[in-house]
Amino acid sequence: MINTKLPKLWYGGDYNPEQWDEEIWKEDDRLFKLAGIDVATVNVFSWALNQPNEDTYHFAWLDETIDRLYRNGVYVCLATSTGAHPAWMARKYPDILRVDYEGRKRKFGGRHNSCPNSPTYRKYAKRMAGRLAERYKDHPAVLIWHVSNEYGGYCYCDNCAAAFRAWLREQYGSLDALNKAWNTRFWSHHFYDWEDIVVPNALSEEWGGSRTNFQGISLDYRRFQSDSLLECYKLERDELKRFTPDIPVTTNLMGFYPELDYFKWAKEMDVVSWDNYPSLETPFSQTAMTHALMRGLKNGQPFMLMEQTPSVQNWQPYNSAKRPGVMRLWSYQAVAHGADTVMFFQLRRSIGACEKYHGAVIEHVGHEHTRVFRECAELGKELQLLGDRLLDARSDAKVAIIFDWENRWGIELSSGPSVALNYVEEVHKYYDALHRLHIQTDMIGVEEHLERYEVVIAPVMYMVKPGFAERVEVFVSRGGTFVTTFFSGIVNEHDLVTLGGYPGKLRKVTGIWAEEIDALFPDRHNQMVMRSPRGHLEGSYNCGILCDVIHAEGAEVVAEYGSDYYRGMPSLTVNRFGKGKAWYVASSPEARFLQDLMRTICDEHGIEAVLNAPCGVETVRRVKDGQEVTFVLNHTAESAAVPLGDAVYIDLLTGREQQVTCEVPAHGVRILQKLSVH
Amino acid sequence: MINTKLPKLWYGGDYNPEQWDEEIWKEDDRLFKLAGIDVATVNVFSWALNQPNEDTYHFAWLDETIDRLYRNGVYVCLATSTGAHPAWMARKYPDILRVDYEGRKRKFGGRHNSCPNSPTYRKYAKRMAGRLAERYKDHPAVLIWHVSNEYGGYCYCDNCAAAFRAWLREQYGSLDALNKAWNTRFWSHHFYDWEDIVVPNALSEEWGGSRTNFQGISLDYRRFQSDSLLECYKLERDELKRFTPDIPVTTNLMGFYPELDYFKWAKEMDVVSWDNYPSLETPFSQTAMTHALMRGLKNGQPFMLMEQTPSVQNWQPYNSAKRPGVMRLWSYQAVAHGADTVMFFQLRRSIGACEKYHGAVIEHVGHEHTRVFRECAELGKELQLLGDRLLDARSDAKVAIIFDWENRWGIELSSGPSVALNYVEEVHKYYDALHRLHIQTDMIGVEEHLERYEVVIAPVMYMVKPGFAERVEVFVSRGGTFVTTFFSGIVNEHDLVTLGGYPGKLRKVTGIWAEEIDALFPDRHNQMVMRSPRGHLEGSYNCGILCDVIHAEGAEVVAEYGSDYYRGMPSLTVNRFGKGKAWYVASSPEARFLQDLMRTICDEHGIEAVLNAPCGVETVRRVKDGQEVTFVLNHTAESAAVPLGDAVYIDLLTGREQQVTCEVPAHGVRILQKLSVH
Amino acid sequence: MINTKLPKLWYGGDYNPEQWDEEIWKEDDRLFKLAGIDVATVNVFSWALNQPNEDTYHFAWLDETIDRLYRNGVYVCLATSTGAHPAWMARKYPDILRVDYEGRKRKFGGRHNSCPNSPTYRKYAKRMAGRLAERYKDHPAVLIWHVSNEYGGYCYCDNCAAAFRAWLREQYGSLDALNKAWNTRFWSHHFYDWEDIVVPNALSEEWGGSRTNFQGISLDYRRFQSDSLLECYKLERDELKRFTPDIPVTTNLMGFYPELDYFKWAKEMDVVSWDNYPSLETPFSQTAMTHALMRGLKNGQPFMLMEQTPSVQNWQPYNSAKRPGVMRLWSYQAVAHGADTVMFFQLRRSIGACEKYHGAVIEHVGHEHTRVFRECAELGKELQLLGDRLLDARSDAKVAIIFDWENRWGIELSSGPSVALNYVEEVHKYYDALHRLHIQTDMIGVEEHLERYEVVIAPVMYMVKPGFAERVEVFVSRGGTFVTTFFSGIVNEHDLVTLGGYPGKLRKVTGIWAEEIDALFPDRHNQMVMRSPRGHLEGSYNCGILCDVIHAEGAEVVAEYGSDYYRGMPSLTVNRFGKGKAWYVASSPEARFLQDLMRTICDEHGIEAVLNAPCGVETVRRVKDGQEVTFVLNHTAESAAVPLGDAVYIDLLTGREQQVTCEVPAHGVRILQKLSVH
Repeated sequence: MINTKLPKLWYGGDYNPEQWDEEIWKEDDRLFKLAGIDVATVNVFSWALNQPNEDTYHFAWLDETIDRLYRNGVYVCLATSTGAHPAWMARKYPDILRVDYEGRKRKFGGRHNSCPNSPTYRKYAKRMAGRLAERYKDHPAVLIWHVSNEYGGYCYCDNCAAAFRAWLREQYGSLDALNKAWNTRFWSHHFYDWEDIVVPNALSEEWGGSRTNFQGISLDYRRFQSDSLLECYKLERDELKRFTPDIPVTTNLMGFYPELDYFKWAKEMDVVSWDNYPSLETPFSQTAMTHALMRGLKNGQPFMLMEQTPSVQNWQPYNSAKRPGVMRLWSYQAVAHGADTVMFFQLRRSIGACEKYHGAVIEHVGHEHTRVFRECAELGKELQLLGDRLLDARSDAKVAIIFDWENRWGIELSSGPSVALNYVEEVHKYYDALHRLHIQTDMIGVEEHLERYEVVIAPVMYMVKPGFAERVEVFVSRGGTFVTTFFSGIVNEHDLVTLGGYPGKLRKVTGIWAEEIDALFPDRHNQMVMRSPRGHLEGSYNCGILCDVIHAEGAEVVAEYGSDYYRGMPSLTVNRFGKGKAWYVASSPEARFLQDLMRTICDEHGIEAVLNAPCGVETVRRVKDGQEVTFVLNHTAESAAVPLGDAVYIDLLTGREQQVTCEVPAHGVRILQKLSVH
Repeated sequence: MINTKLPKLWYGGDYNPEQWDEEIWKEDDRLFKLAGIDVATVNVFSWALNQPNEDTYHFAWLDETIDRLYRNGVYVCLATSTGAHPAWMARKYPDILRVDYEGRKRKFGGRHNSCPNSPTYRKYAKRMAGRLAERYKDHPAVLIWHVSNEYGGYCYCDNCAAAFRAWLREQYGSLDALNKAWNTRFWSHHFYDWEDIVVPNALSEEWGGSRTNFQGISLDYRRFQSDSLLECYKLERDELKRFTPDIPVTTNLMGFYPELDYFKWAKEMDVVSWDNYPSLETPFSQTAMTHALMRGLKNGQPFMLMEQTPSVQNWQPYNSAKRPGVMRLWSYQAVAHGADTVMFFQLRRSIGACEKYHGAVIEHVGHEHTRVFRECAELGKELQLLGDRLLDARSDAKVAIIFDWENRWGIELSSGPSVALNYVEEVHKYYDALHRLHIQTDMIGVEEHLERYEVVIAPVMYMVKPGFAERVEVFVSRGGTFVTTFFSGIVNEHDLVTLGGYPGKLRKVTGIWAEEIDALFPDRHNQMVMRSPRGHLEGSYNCGILCDVIHAEGAEVVAEYGSDYYRGMPSLTVNRFGKGKAWYVASSPEARFLQDLMRTICDEHGIEAVLNAPCGVETVRRVKDGQEVTFVLNHTAESAAVPLGDAVYIDLLTGREQQVTCEVPAHGVRILQKLSVH
Repeated sequence: MINTKLPKLWYGGDYNPEQWDEEIWKEDDRLFKLAGIDVATVNVFSWALNQPNEDTYHFAWLDETIDRLYRNGVYVCLATSTGAHPAWMARKYPDILRVDYEGRKRKFGGRHNSCPNSPTYRKYAKRMAGRLAERYKDHPAVLIWHVSNEYGGYCYCDNCAAAFRAWLREQYGSLDALNKAWNTRFWSHHFYDWEDIVVPNALSEEWGGSRTNFQGISLDYRRFQSDSLLECYKLERDELKRFTPDIPVTTNLMGFYPELDYFKWAKEMDVVSWDNYPSLETPFSQTAMTHALMRGLKNGQPFMLMEQTPSVQNWQPYNSAKRPGVMRLWSYQAVAHGADTVMFFQLRRSIGACEKYHGAVIEHVGHEHTRVFRECAELGKELQLLGDRLLDARSDAKVAIIFDWENRWGIELSSGPSVALNYVEEVHKYYDALHRLHIQTDMIGVEEHLERYEVVIAPVMYMVKPGFAERVEVFVSRGGTFVTTFFSGIVNEHDLVTLGGYPGKLRKVTGIWAEEIDALFPDRHNQMVMRSPRGHLEGSYNCGILCDVIHAEGAEVVAEYGSDYYRGMPSLTVNRFGKGKAWYVASSPEARFLQDLMRTICDEHGIEAVLNAPCGVETVRRVKDGQEVTFVLNHTAESAAVPLGDAVYIDLLTGREQQVTCEVPAHGVRILQKLSVH
């Protein structure tokens, strides 16, 4: 449980009373109660208000706010306000301003605007965290600390450059090691002095954001910047812990955000929290996968849904309203995948600046007679009803997909073989196939224990870091099924190619050699032709993007290419290795193939669907103290009938028994607890 | 009349004899006479020539030029030459160079290149205007002053930053007021010192030209830059007026140019002039609307067509030639909408630099035996024939559309709800509907008196400035019809939302409440379904971009949405208010709807078509001393027959009587003066 | 012969042993022998390795490399290593770093990164060339010097600005002449001091890379930067020649690379070499044309194919593998068009940085059992077989197409008439037509002697430099056929329009006057309608992009336009001039037209196809000592039968006789030497 003070699914969100006056606060109190809100995230962007100059701090408004909320039955998620620095600080201490990718010194503006290696930023951010912790350490309203906000963005200033060199020294020990890791004999890049190293951006080694001449330095800069921001987080966290060792600390993450290695971050967080902003056109399996990733960051521990909009966003190209029921549906989707909170950005809409068209529980009209408020209030009641029944429940998946930020960076920075290759999309193809089959699936990091799973999938495992291949071998030899794909096993952690034939360190377990990698133009395809039917796999499937031209070296050839000069050569192989199997999918196949492959593999392991729901209905299971709770989420605009098999369930939301078939209305939700098998 | 010295439609254009030698000048004299040219705009880009250093001025060439032209029967529109500074000035006084949106200090180059807050620029531009005024104040050739050229572009230098702070102090009085207006409690932006404010550009608050984190500062910066350039204009104008109080002063505007608030500018100009450069694919109603806007800048006062090309442009992607007759057709279109001059850029084509492929009366071949020259000469003759008959004639429109630059900035700077929303396009949809119905329509500013109209349309009146709603209420209560649309009444003049329900201050007159604003993806549509036929409105129409989800609160529901979750809710309402009506069009409808709506409303007011001309034929009316002149402009490549009803007309161009039906050749023009009703 | 030490088609490529250790070197030795490799390009990017600081030079590794290679039977193409400077040099002497088009000072990174006007660069590059020349001047392995690498890119720093001003003084003598040439009276640009001139880039006169306000300065800056890099080349070359006057010197060019005037460069090179990187989708006639251009740079002298990939590239969007046989096919295509070497980038694939996915003879797997290695080894054997039989053979084309870099710059910098106009594409349309007809065609510079040809084609000869028109007149009057097109003869070498009617100086020989130039929108077309059939021309053809509206003034009208206002006016004319003819193609026609026109013209001159091969099969002829060798290159994936007529040939690759018909397998090659006519 995140904090035992509030033993239920927390309900609330970001709240900025400092933008309003007393009269509005009274209305807030009334409306929060109407909506069943019990947690408010406060103080997110109040640094300038809290600290008008170097030595003055004003917290009276915050004292009053927290007291008022608490009196009204609302706890607080207390932010440290360091997500955007004050204007006066930027003018007096320009080191706090970032230098951007183009090498331009920025001026005051925006948010997430502080250089992570700025002495000024670190000094005042740390001090602010300390002041807040000291002041509110005993306040009964405080549930959790929320450090800064949506950390992100890179800086390329001279302070960062110096810190980068120090970081490199720490990593490599010697210039010799660095020169080797970066392969600097290429293009006359040998460094004789640490000072010769400059930051890689549009003025030096990179262009277009992710194009680079030297993958080594660019990869390390991503690691370094992720670490630099993490240092800022840790600085505040340590200061908070100094005063309040028992109050949990988090910062809100952003799903598949590309710039930070969240697996590394999650180690420093008591609980993961994240902001979920799908658009009307985001596939719901994409959202599901992202929840699974956030859950996977801390080995399956429940997370916080820190932000979602009750209605519309403002920063998307077309900010469509969430259709009736969809806010509730997506809230429960989060809970189904491991969220123990449902929180919004924002509780009341602001009247000025760029987020005024971002939806809120309380709209500009100011009263409760809106569709959005009514839906929020209804959900609030349901969550009160559910109480603590779902808290701390876990996934019981037997299938896991590996995701790794460093692998992602390696692929994105790669010059060749194809601009069409998108790591996250390839991962999603596998997740989506399992999701459509209603197979419970975890997203895990590359350092995770594989033993708890029966099937582990590592799509485009381009970068194989020390120990990974060995752990896969142990996993497979003990009976697990491992699936990997084209363009895997190519490089080590420095993006240096593993010599001796692709897929490098994965060659032994997969039993194949990839001689060539052919990139297909977007309008071209090859085929994966089954040599004979196998499980659900049969006939021919389209594939594209990249085609590894492989040779089986021990592995069985299950499918071959259907055309081009490598027609007849293997496109799908499986290698028996100890008691298990390792599959190699040599190209990027169509969705139908992946569903057939995943069904075949799951069948072999006896892994079953959560429920055999029709297309468009998602089914997810959480388990708490041995008790299974099954979420049935209808993402379609039509009602759906889901066969329940032999079991009898009770719907936790209605208290009604469900058996044989469960009817779920359009955009509706059922939360089924198994009673018995009849 | 602009200047009684030349009591006819002026005919001529930009002329740069300084680029040529004496022999060519003689040819110019001969050819101008052949073409019927009587006005030449001179000295537009001669600053470097006129002033080789701080203290030296050379005007001998200009003396000779003006004398020569005058001897040849050609008057001058005398420019002040400050549209581009000399290279020496840029090198010696770099403060004259702009800093661009990316924060980069520019170097010498281009034109329209001076920082409006540069002390150097202001000093020397003012002095140049004074020198010219003093020198030519008594020259009989001078018809009008032409200050600088096509003012535009913004600067972001330190001088501008300082001037911006001073401007803000002037506007707001106190930082408290500014902090409130900009809602700076959002994102920790509270300012404690005026010096903390930096200019909003790609280094601070904005990106992509019109994306911003803070609408308040970005909106004010547009106002400030528009004002800064206007200050430069006024500085020169005042200097000119000091010597020649009776010679009119203008500067050439550019239609819907986005960066300057031309309504504010027009107040400082004796006569509006503008440069008209449609492409082959510009709808002719777009050109018509722009003429109407230029006319509307000064309450319907006739304007100057300062520039158009006789044949091709050079800066468009595909610079197609104006087809035979089109130059004449578009010239008369300008006159029909209120132009009292027909002027070209340029009289003779230059041989070097970027405008050498811009068409001219005298082409590179140098003689008169070209299609272009022949057409120019024929038009010159016609204009001599027309004499002063059209001078000072006015529009008698009963319908007006409101256009407001600050509203435009507000919409463009808005983050959400949809990138598909384009204010000028929405305005054009309404203008186009009226234009196709041959309804005479004015374009007016938001501060205009509404009383002279019967129908006033304010599409996407997003920003409602103080007093506007009240003036609309008076207008409607007295019997007028007001039409407004979705996304109206949202904010005040600081882009702060008006609380209490959209459309804010327009809620009373429209009698509706807009609860939600839904943005549609580009490939999606909703429908406006008529509850019952009304006037010309019947059945169902497509709509899209944004759909306001509205409730009638007193207004009558005329049409409802046809699909999605707000199906059956109002999409078109009309509210009786006093003696008049206020319509609310809740989405952006297809063209057919707007024609049917406009016809319905005009019928109610008895507002009739100028003439019932077929599609592709434009009809426009000017009125002088009670005498109507009707322009019939055939924009098609086929001849057309226009029914004239009961009246008998005389065609001013041919002197021939026209009755029953008027035949207009392909790309042809008739200028009809009513003689009698038979 | 490039160097008599190795009297055969050289075979090898770029080799970077400094990236590897001794064990790998041994494998290299073994594998090079297996592959028949006899030349290695070394030391290309070793500056940092060779020179760790100002005064220290390390060449031991290079000594060993060259010795080892030579012992193993491999000669060296010895690079000077100045294509990328060391990091220490950039830090200590920042003048070596470029300022980019945006005006930003770059930091260390990439390659081709040195400012050509940097004193530091010039000093150390020259010294490096001298040290290398002195050290290896007597080494028997050295075949040729390879200066720097792929020169390119422009710099805009202050050193360049100063050098530009000096260059301008040299060119123009006086500011008066410069002001006139640049037409600076336009837009107030008159210069009174050389120091007032700033470099034209995104901060001053240009934007978007090729858009400019002043064509004059932009054109001169391209000339100046091309000259500046050429100065760097000459500095090294002269230093090399000081020690080794008899060893040839080259630098590798890049085909139609836009930034350097290769005709000027080739004059300074002993032999042209170039890097050929077509993609899977590059038309093979485009590659053929580029080979022809490289051959034409030095009047038909054979060139070096310095680089090509044996398999894949890394920097294209989709890096497809060369299909089986294609590497050999394209190698012989190069030889067919005049290459006397077949060389790869690279011999062994690197393991780190951006080119690790660029193909190589030795792949990452490290052994010889790959498709790529096998194909390389087979080609190596064939080239040994061919020995010196093809060395120094020449083209015997009677048709030439003119290409001119300054003309290209003029067209690209032009503001108007159409962004759709692409000079290289227009040239390729003509080359492609001839290529499909199997007509041997040369690509020549604008200063070339025309007398050796019967047909000379100058597509879009926009810029006519002094003497050119006169040379065309002589050529035609003596019986030659000259073909030119729309938008020709417009400007002189300063991009100043030639007054008196287009096509200016070509008006006399073409016998026409182009009154107007109409630009067509991309979806629009006109037609070239034959007045009566003529040769292979008949009926109607589509045309577009630009349509010159022309008048025949002596020329015969062969075709007229089919639509629009210039319907019936000439679209194709031919003018008899002395004993020859000059054609004017007034628009950009479809491919079918150009084939019919070229066939018609070639028939008139009795110019015949090399062989009447079917579509997709290329035929090219080289002649040595009067002996013809015909290359038959099948670019299709099907085998093809080529009729041989009466002659009997021997296939040099198989030694087999060929008569009547020659079968060529898919992607196959025949090299036929004529034995007799049967």
